[in-house]
Amino acid sequence: MNLLRVDHTAIVVADMDDALARYGRIWGLEPNIRTEIRDQRVEIAFLPVGDTQLELIRPLDADSGVARFLDRHGESLHHIGIAVDDVRAELEALSKDGVPLIDHQPRRGVHGLIAFVHPRGSGGVLIELVQNTHDAWLQA
Amino acid sequence: MNLLRVDHTAIVVADMDDALARYGRIWGLEPNIRTEIRDQRVEIAFLPVGDTQLELIRPLDADSGVARFLDRHGESLHHIGIAVDDVRAELEALSKDGVPLIDHQPRRGVHGLIAFVHPRGSGGVLIELVQNTHDAWLQA
Repeated sequence: MNLLRVDHTAIVVADMDDALARYGRIWGLEPNIRTEIRDQRVEIAFLPVGDTQLELIRPLDADSGVARFLDRHGESLHHIGIAVDDVRAELEALSKDGVPLIDHQPRRGVHGLIAFVHPRGSGGVLIELVQNTHDAWLQA
Repeated sequence: MNLLRVDHTAIVVADMDDALARYGRIWGLEPNIRTEIRDQRVEIAFLPVGDTQLELIRPLDADSGVARFLDRHGESLHHIGIAVDDVRAELEALSKDGVPLIDHQPRRGVHGLIAFVHPRGSGGVLIELVQNTHDAWLQA
């Protein structure tokens, strides 16, 4: 594995307007992206902090995995996004090591290619691999 | 607030040896610090990833807040550590804004001065302010 850096730490929220107002008022953080990802049934916002980011995630309906997470845990930390050079190569290496994956192929995220590793593979912590995020970011 | 960067993302684990073996084997991450913090009744380890870190936290007994967190949530994400220039000034600013704090004064952490903000002040997410971590790190 070649883990470059923590790209983002993601937090599930119930109300995006409330959450953004709070992160702005208390922490002085402003989103540079806020968008709905319809196929994932979530709304997300990214708040840069130095060269990493907080990601806020709000479920758009009651049936998604994120909605069930919110029901069970309330607003709380959801996953870590870790930047890698090559998501596909990392997935192959993890798969060979027997690590359970959620995404067996990279898919398109907001900032590049992404894939989720199953929490069973990392002690209960959901990890997202992110490729070329920072470059995509700089080019955006 | 002047938030410099995400210093670390912290994960509670039940067994430190198992967790370190897993993060080493799967993710290629190695700790550069592993130590017990007796007054907090935890063992911690830091695994650098780029210029940020994962922190693993294991409760040393069954009565600490971290032990109760582990009981309730299992191994999972615990808090975000955010680097600031001046923990004391940030605590004063947060306090003036009516944000509930766990630590009203900075205390000594592994890498410098730290203070925890109450999760009620940040939508259920426990946030640690860290001062001079990176400098202390470089000097260590």
